[in-house]
Amino acid sequence: MTAPHPHRVVLVGAGFGGLYAAKALKGAPVGLTVIDRRNFHLFQPLLYQVATGSLSPGEIASPIRHVLSGNRQARVWLAEVRDIQVEHRRLLLDAGEIEYDTLILATGAHDHYFGHDDWAAFAPGLKTIEDATAIRSRILQAFESAEREPDSEERRAWLTFVIVGAGPTGVELAGALGEIANDTLRHDFRSINPAEANILLLEGGERVLPSFPVDLSRIAERDLVKLGVRSRTGAVVIGLDNGGVTVRAGDRCERIAAKTVLWAAGVQASSLGRILAEHTGAVLDRSGRVIVQPDLTVPGHPEIFVIGDLANFSHQTGQPLPGVAPVAMAQGRYVARTIRARLRGETMPPFHYLDKGALATIGRNKAVAAFGRLHISGFLAWIVWLFVHLMYLVEFDNRLLVLVEWVYDYITRNRGARLITKGPGG
Amino acid sequence: MTAPHPHRVVLVGAGFGGLYAAKALKGAPVGLTVIDRRNFHLFQPLLYQVATGSLSPGEIASPIRHVLSGNRQARVWLAEVRDIQVEHRRLLLDAGEIEYDTLILATGAHDHYFGHDDWAAFAPGLKTIEDATAIRSRILQAFESAEREPDSEERRAWLTFVIVGAGPTGVELAGALGEIANDTLRHDFRSINPAEANILLLEGGERVLPSFPVDLSRIAERDLVKLGVRSRTGAVVIGLDNGGVTVRAGDRCERIAAKTVLWAAGVQASSLGRILAEHTGAVLDRSGRVIVQPDLTVPGHPEIFVIGDLANFSHQTGQPLPGVAPVAMAQGRYVARTIRARLRGETMPPFHYLDKGALATIGRNKAVAAFGRLHISGFLAWIVWLFVHLMYLVEFDNRLLVLVEWVYDYITRNRGARLITKGPGG
Repeated sequence: MTAPHPHRVVLVGAGFGGLYAAKALKGAPVGLTVIDRRNFHLFQPLLYQVATGSLSPGEIASPIRHVLSGNRQARVWLAEVRDIQVEHRRLLLDAGEIEYDTLILATGAHDHYFGHDDWAAFAPGLKTIEDATAIRSRILQAFESAEREPDSEERRAWLTFVIVGAGPTGVELAGALGEIANDTLRHDFRSINPAEANILLLEGGERVLPSFPVDLSRIAERDLVKLGVRSRTGAVVIGLDNGGVTVRAGDRCERIAAKTVLWAAGVQASSLGRILAEHTGAVLDRSGRVIVQPDLTVPGHPEIFVIGDLANFSHQTGQPLPGVAPVAMAQGRYVARTIRARLRGETMPPFHYLDKGALATIGRNKAVAAFGRLHISGFLAWIVWLFVHLMYLVEFDNRLLVLVEWVYDYITRNRGARLITKGPGG
Repeated sequence: MTAPHPHRVVLVGAGFGGLYAAKALKGAPVGLTVIDRRNFHLFQPLLYQVATGSLSPGEIASPIRHVLSGNRQARVWLAEVRDIQVEHRRLLLDAGEIEYDTLILATGAHDHYFGHDDWAAFAPGLKTIEDATAIRSRILQAFESAEREPDSEERRAWLTFVIVGAGPTGVELAGALGEIANDTLRHDFRSINPAEANILLLEGGERVLPSFPVDLSRIAERDLVKLGVRSRTGAVVIGLDNGGVTVRAGDRCERIAAKTVLWAAGVQASSLGRILAEHTGAVLDRSGRVIVQPDLTVPGHPEIFVIGDLANFSHQTGQPLPGVAPVAMAQGRYVARTIRARLRGETMPPFHYLDKGALATIGRNKAVAAFGRLHISGFLAWIVWLFVHLMYLVEFDNRLLVLVEWVYDYITRNRGARLITKGPGG
C-alpha cells in the first residue's frame, strides 16, 4: 500500500518570480521541485554594480538550495528543460524527466539584438554574472589599452564607450562609467587622463528612461551630463562591429569609432515560451512573452502558470506589466496563494499588481523615483533607492556585505572589484 | 637640451615580492615601470577560501594601479615578457619593448604535474582566480550531480574528493572541504547526505605539512580526521583521469574512483627563469628557480635581481628559502633598499631572512603555527592566523570586507560565495 503522493508542484526558474513563489509555498501541502540551470539566484538589479567593479559576483548571488533550505518539502534540481509534454504533465530535462500536477514557468528573458545576433559578440548585454564580469574586464581593459596606445585616433576609440539603450540598466551603466572615468581611475594612469573618456548613451526613443515620467527623464539627462555622459535620443543603431557603431538619427547616419559597446536595448523572453505555445496554443507577443489569463495561467491549462518576464499580463491596464522584479515577486506570491486556495477548494480573485513605482540610480547621490504622482530626484531619491535595494537583499545573506562595500566605496570613491579576468566567469 | 633620464627600474610581476619592492621604491629617484599580465595583485594565501566559497575574488585581489597610485613615479603596464636582451638591457613584450637600468624579476611559480601535463585537465591546481572559481564550481557541481545520480557507485564517485599534496594549501583545501560537507551543505540536499562525502588527502612524504615540525603535523592530521578528512601519507599518484586516481603506496597500487581531484602537489618556477638562464648563464634548480647571489642578483649581472618564488636563495641555511609570501616581501624590500643604496654610492650587506614562522589553518578554530621553537595549535593558533592575514590585508582595501565575511561565516557556518559559474573567470 502506498500513500497517495502530495500535489506535485514543479517550478522552472529561480529568479525573483520563481523564488518568491517557492518561498510562499513553504508549509503548503505540496511537494515542490525547483529547477534552474544555475545553482544561484541572482539579484539582477545590482548586476550593473558587478559590471562596474563595485560589487563582487558572490555579493549579489545566493545559492538556491541555501535560500530554500528551510523549506523541507522543496528540492532543487540543477537542470535544463528541453520540452514540455502537456498531455502527460511531464517535463523532459537535459538528464531525466519529471512529472507535475501544477507547473510554474518563470524562466525570464535574455538580451535581444533585434535580428542581429552577430552583434552579441561586439556588444555584450547584462543578464548573467558572466556578462557582468566580461563587461567589467572589457571596460578596464579599454583603459589599459588606451594607456599603451601611441596612435591618438586609436587611443580615442579605446576611450569611447557606447551604451545602447537608455532604460534603467543603460542609465545606471552610463552613470557608473562616468564615475569610473572621473573619480575611480583619476590617479591610476600616466599617459592618459581617464576623465577624457567619451561616454555616449544611445536611445531609440525620444528621451532617456522612456518608461519614467517626463520630468524625471529631464533630470536624469542633466545628471548624466554632470558625470560626463552625453545622451543621444532618437538614435537607432544600424551597424555594429569591433571598431564601433553606426547610428541613424532621422535622415543622418553617423559612424562612431568605439572599442567598447554595451547593450542594454532590448530583451526577448526565454525560449520556453515558444515551446509552451507549440504544445498549448498559447499566444506569444512580439517579445516572445506568453499572454496569460487574469489568473496567470495559460488558456485551457489551469495547471500551468507563467510569471515574471516570461509573462505578458495586460488585463490590468491594457498594457503589459513591466519586466521588473516587483511584478515578478507579486506574481510569484499570487501563484503560491492560488495553489493553496485550490487545494482547499477555494478560488482566488484575478491577479492585481499594486504599482511599487519605478527607481533608477544615476550615480553618487543621484537617482530618480516615481511613486504614482509623487516624483522625487537627487539625494532623497538616492537614499530611497539604497533603502529599497538593501531591504530586498534582506532575503539573502549578503545585505551587510553589500552595505559595507557601498559605505566604503562612498567614502573612498573607490571600487574594490576591478578585476580583469579571463573568459566568462564569476 | 634634454634632461638625463632618471634611473629606470623595470619590475616584472606584481605578486608579493614585486609589489613590496614597488612600494618600497616610493620616493626613490628612479622611474619605475611595473609589468604584469594581470591588472590585479592577488592575495594568494586566501585563494583557497575563494575555491571553497567563503570569499569572492574581488575580496582578495586589488588593482595594481590602485595600490601604486600614490607612487607618482610608477607606471603600470599590462603586458607579457617574451624575451630579455640582457646586452641591451631591454625586455621584449607581447606588444612593444622597454629598456631598463635595473631589472627585477618576480614572476613566481605555477602548478607542476611532474611531467604529466595532461593531468592538469583532471586535477586543477590553485594558483589563479580562474583556478579558484573553477575549483569552486567543480566542488559544488559534484554535490549537485550526486543529488541527481541514481547509481550508487557513481554517486559515491561524485562524493569522493581527492586532494593531492598535503602542504599548507592541500591541508587548507581539505579542511574547508570537510566543513562544506559537514556544516555548510548539511540542510541543502534531499537525496544525499553531504556529510557522507569521502575526502582524501594524499601526500607523497611521510606526514601532512612536511615542512612543519613533527608535533604540528600530528595535530593537523588529528584535526583533519575530526573534519572527516582521511589523510594518506607515502602515497604517490601514478595515474589520473576523469574517473579518479591511481595511487602507489610502497608496493601496493590502488585505484580510487573520484570525480573531483584537486592538485596541490608541486610548483615550477615561471618560464622567465629559463629565458634568463639562456641569456646570462644563470643556473636553475630542479624546480626551475634561478640560483641567486647573496644580494639576490644574477651572477655577472648586478643589474638583474630575481626574487620570490622565482629565486633559489640558499646562502643562509644551505637550503633554498621556502616559497612563501613573507620571504618574497622581505626580498622585495631588500632589493628596493639595495637600489637606493647604489644610487647613493653605498653598498648593502647580503640579504638575510628573519624567519617569520609557518602557519596553516585546518578549519574553524583550528590551526597550527611554528615560530622558531614555539609551536602552537588549536584556537590560539587560529586567532594568530586570522590576525596575521588581516594585518597583511591592511595593505589592500579589502580588510574590512574580509573581516565581515569571516565573522558572518563564523557565526552562521555559512559560505556566501557558493556560485557555479561557467568557464574560468572571476
